[in-house]
Amino acid sequence: MPQPLKIAIAGALGRMGRQMAEAVAADPRLELVARFHRPGSAGEGLVERDEALALADAVIDFTTSAASAELAEACAARGGPALVIGSTGFSAAELAAIIEAAKKIPIVRSGSYSLGLNMLTGLVEEAARALGPDDCDIEILEAHHRFKVDAPSGTALMLGEAAARGRGVAKRARDGVTGPRPAGEIGFAVLRGGGIVGEHSVSFLTEGETLTLSHAAGDRSMFARGAIAAALWLAGRPPGEYDMRDVLGFGAG
Amino acid sequence: MPQPLKIAIAGALGRMGRQMAEAVAADPRLELVARFHRPGSAGEGLVERDEALALADAVIDFTTSAASAELAEACAARGGPALVIGSTGFSAAELAAIIEAAKKIPIVRSGSYSLGLNMLTGLVEEAARALGPDDCDIEILEAHHRFKVDAPSGTALMLGEAAARGRGVAKRARDGVTGPRPAGEIGFAVLRGGGIVGEHSVSFLTEGETLTLSHAAGDRSMFARGAIAAALWLAGRPPGEYDMRDVLGFGAG
Amino acid sequence: MPQPLKIAIAGALGRMGRQMAEAVAADPRLELVARFHRPGSAGEGLVERDEALALADAVIDFTTSAASAELAEACAARGGPALVIGSTGFSAAELAAIIEAAKKIPIVRSGSYSLGLNMLTGLVEEAARALGPDDCDIEILEAHHRFKVDAPSGTALMLGEAAARGRGVAKRARDGVTGPRPAGEIGFAVLRGGGIVGEHSVSFLTEGETLTLSHAAGDRSMFARGAIAAALWLAGRPPGEYDMRDVLGFGAG
Amino acid sequence: MPQPLKIAIAGALGRMGRQMAEAVAADPRLELVARFHRPGSAGEGLVERDEALALADAVIDFTTSAASAELAEACAARGGPALVIGSTGFSAAELAAIIEAAKKIPIVRSGSYSLGLNMLTGLVEEAARALGPDDCDIEILEAHHRFKVDAPSGTALMLGEAAARGRGVAKRARDGVTGPRPAGEIGFAVLRGGGIVGEHSVSFLTEGETLTLSHAAGDRSMFARGAIAAALWLAGRPPGEYDMRDVLGFGAG
Repeated sequence: MPQPLKIAIAGALGRMGRQMAEAVAADPRLELVARFHRPGSAGEGLVERDEALALADAVIDFTTSAASAELAEACAARGGPALVIGSTGFSAAELAAIIEAAKKIPIVRSGSYSLGLNMLTGLVEEAARALGPDDCDIEILEAHHRFKVDAPSGTALMLGEAAARGRGVAKRARDGVTGPRPAGEIGFAVLRGGGIVGEHSVSFLTEGETLTLSHAAGDRSMFARGAIAAALWLAGRPPGEYDMRDVLGFGAG
Repeated sequence: MPQPLKIAIAGALGRMGRQMAEAVAADPRLELVARFHRPGSAGEGLVERDEALALADAVIDFTTSAASAELAEACAARGGPALVIGSTGFSAAELAAIIEAAKKIPIVRSGSYSLGLNMLTGLVEEAARALGPDDCDIEILEAHHRFKVDAPSGTALMLGEAAARGRGVAKRARDGVTGPRPAGEIGFAVLRGGGIVGEHSVSFLTEGETLTLSHAAGDRSMFARGAIAAALWLAGRPPGEYDMRDVLGFGAG
Repeated sequence: MPQPLKIAIAGALGRMGRQMAEAVAADPRLELVARFHRPGSAGEGLVERDEALALADAVIDFTTSAASAELAEACAARGGPALVIGSTGFSAAELAAIIEAAKKIPIVRSGSYSLGLNMLTGLVEEAARALGPDDCDIEILEAHHRFKVDAPSGTALMLGEAAARGRGVAKRARDGVTGPRPAGEIGFAVLRGGGIVGEHSVSFLTEGETLTLSHAAGDRSMFARGAIAAALWLAGRPPGEYDMRDVLGFGAG
Repeated sequence: MPQPLKIAIAGALGRMGRQMAEAVAADPRLELVARFHRPGSAGEGLVERDEALALADAVIDFTTSAASAELAEACAARGGPALVIGSTGFSAAELAAIIEAAKKIPIVRSGSYSLGLNMLTGLVEEAARALGPDDCDIEILEAHHRFKVDAPSGTALMLGEAAARGRGVAKRARDGVTGPRPAGEIGFAVLRGGGIVGEHSVSFLTEGETLTLSHAAGDRSMFARGAIAAALWLAGRPPGEYDMRDVLGFGAG
């Protein structure tokens, strides 16, 4: 059994920071060596950022775009630790700072750390490429709780984009006398109700068979699990900016 | 083991007539005693209608509305046999003739003889009544082959009507910023592709659990199977006009 | 809008008691008028049992078999309130006390308050009765989290019993060269993994079509929801012992 | 639009040969240039084998292992056409002949030409590799018609092997007090009933999410479709023995 990877948690007082700390503490492959929050924060067991960076092999950071960019610069200036960034909404300047930092340290950055959804997206793209539009129809179905206000979900659209690379144009829900299904289109269907956390499925349909790739979200622990997978994957990796496709082995290189 | 029920097939040269004859011949609970077609038809083993009526306990008739109405009158005039009618598109006069005939003989008449879909429709209505609209959302999903030209399917709409009895108003597919789901609405979602014969599911969703009732059609043999179940159910039944709800035991009385 | 039903919660310091109190407080059809626990318990807002009984139209009681039997006697002696009992493991003497009490007050007692699972059980029995064993196979599939230690689940066995009433004998999982499927048997299949809360499906399969009735549990809130439905159903009901089948309208009556 | 690929059908009087001929004739990307059967066969439109080989770009051959080995030698001796072999049950000597022939001409050989099942197998292996056994459970479910005599299906076992490469050992169905699920095992569950042609699903389950990859077979046309995809993929390919993994782009290369 190798030494556990030493993890520091940024934004440790936030909801995601607390969940990450719990998940890291419960994982025998990891050691939770430090928790920090923005300068001046008070909380049991919190340390200052620089102290945390000196202790950790990797930092898991679900904070804000500005805080993440600054953290990336600080880690790069020290030559480590590695970084797992789950913040979103980066400005061009913040992105540039992260890209610059990634020349010195390895960084995984992703808008969603669900291993299952990232895997699904990668598999959908592969299947769409191999099966071709000639006699294979692609249909995407998603279901969410009754309070969701948009349709189709952002994830469904992302899956549609993955399927569409190399295919036809995505098309929306059907109603009325629609005529036969145009070849090459990608159809979306939407269910809303109850407390469904999130379900997505992509079907590849030919006249003789149907292949369906689907994902059901249970709870937010899936994001912590994916961030931990990213941290473990980063260990010993050369500097560079990576995403969950790389972590899951879909990367071209 | 009781005596097999004696069955005559009307419209024996039609596609459904041929399938029915095959299914009846293969079923040990039945004996195929006669096959007939419109007067003057020539075909191996065909007999005249009146000869067929004299031999049979029940006639299975998938022909035309006019032929079925006339057959019902002929059976009623003789005081039997019982009748299973699968024709559709009846005029008011034809319907009146059948209702009149049903005072003398038992008749099952249905627009769809699928046991599964009729059962599904009955169960959906029961569940919708018991679960109430207060915190239970109803969503209907259907999937068909790429050549289907209308959406949602007629069967999906029929399921929506079954659910809507005692509930709110059915609503159609979703797209865009739809806002949270209105309580009491019934939603429809549609998938099209490949060679799917026909799939329907009705979900009852609350925040803590989901109940889903679904049906998948395999091939047209399901209609023959349902017509046979109707014929067996008719044996010894008093005169009257029945439908598949009665055959399945849903009828109130 | 009618007056909200006045609810008292027994066992208010227990896990289920706390969940019930929250669910009742959040439901506009109900008013939470009292919370009590075993005599001598200290807790914010707790009252004594007799005070609670004087205020309430119905008591929801997820405690112990002994406490529930005693509560039933106390309610019956007062001529009310009505009672929703979710305790399990009753001795013969405790059951007798509840049956005696139910001559004076209406009581719903059930081992599981999931509306969906009770509905599923009722629908499965109906479908099994109507579809008959002649050419309809019944298969039950259940899936649970990786920590579940028994298989098939108790709920799957209960569904099998519902299906078996009027059918053949239930049979267990398959392995090896099993030969063709015996007609009339009921098959079970089991999936275990991840954090699945609980999924059950019962399929009725003929050669031409498949009807599937299924249930997915999300979280324990489904039990609180069912207990509330039972309390609302009890309002104005005559004395008697009822179960969730009655609440859902499956009762023979 | 490129010239259609010229296809000859071996074993043209067999069931699969007739289906292949129909499928090729209906496909605008192909031209059916010859049909042949074993020497001395009589049938409308049949030609001799050598005549067929002279006309075709590719031969599609679902015959017997002996006939396929001989055909491979004949094609190799002429320097073409390419070969799509769907026969099974090869002896060592027959296999050696095909491997030898594949030094001169490109050959696809597969025991199953379903594009969907081959895609599923490839995707399952990828997902199993990327998700790791640490907290991801793998469960395989298959459903077939009531007449199937073995369980789990050969395809389910093949999917289990794909998942097991790099994982733990496959394990069979569950029954009784099984204890918690051992980490790393691969579980199988089996449904039998009605006329289900064949359904397989592989689930990857963690505590927070579930990824499910599944396939439903509709009819045997899926094999013709896969053989056609193989023939099209072979056009212009260098000599070598390929399988459906290569056709679908999973090849190591």
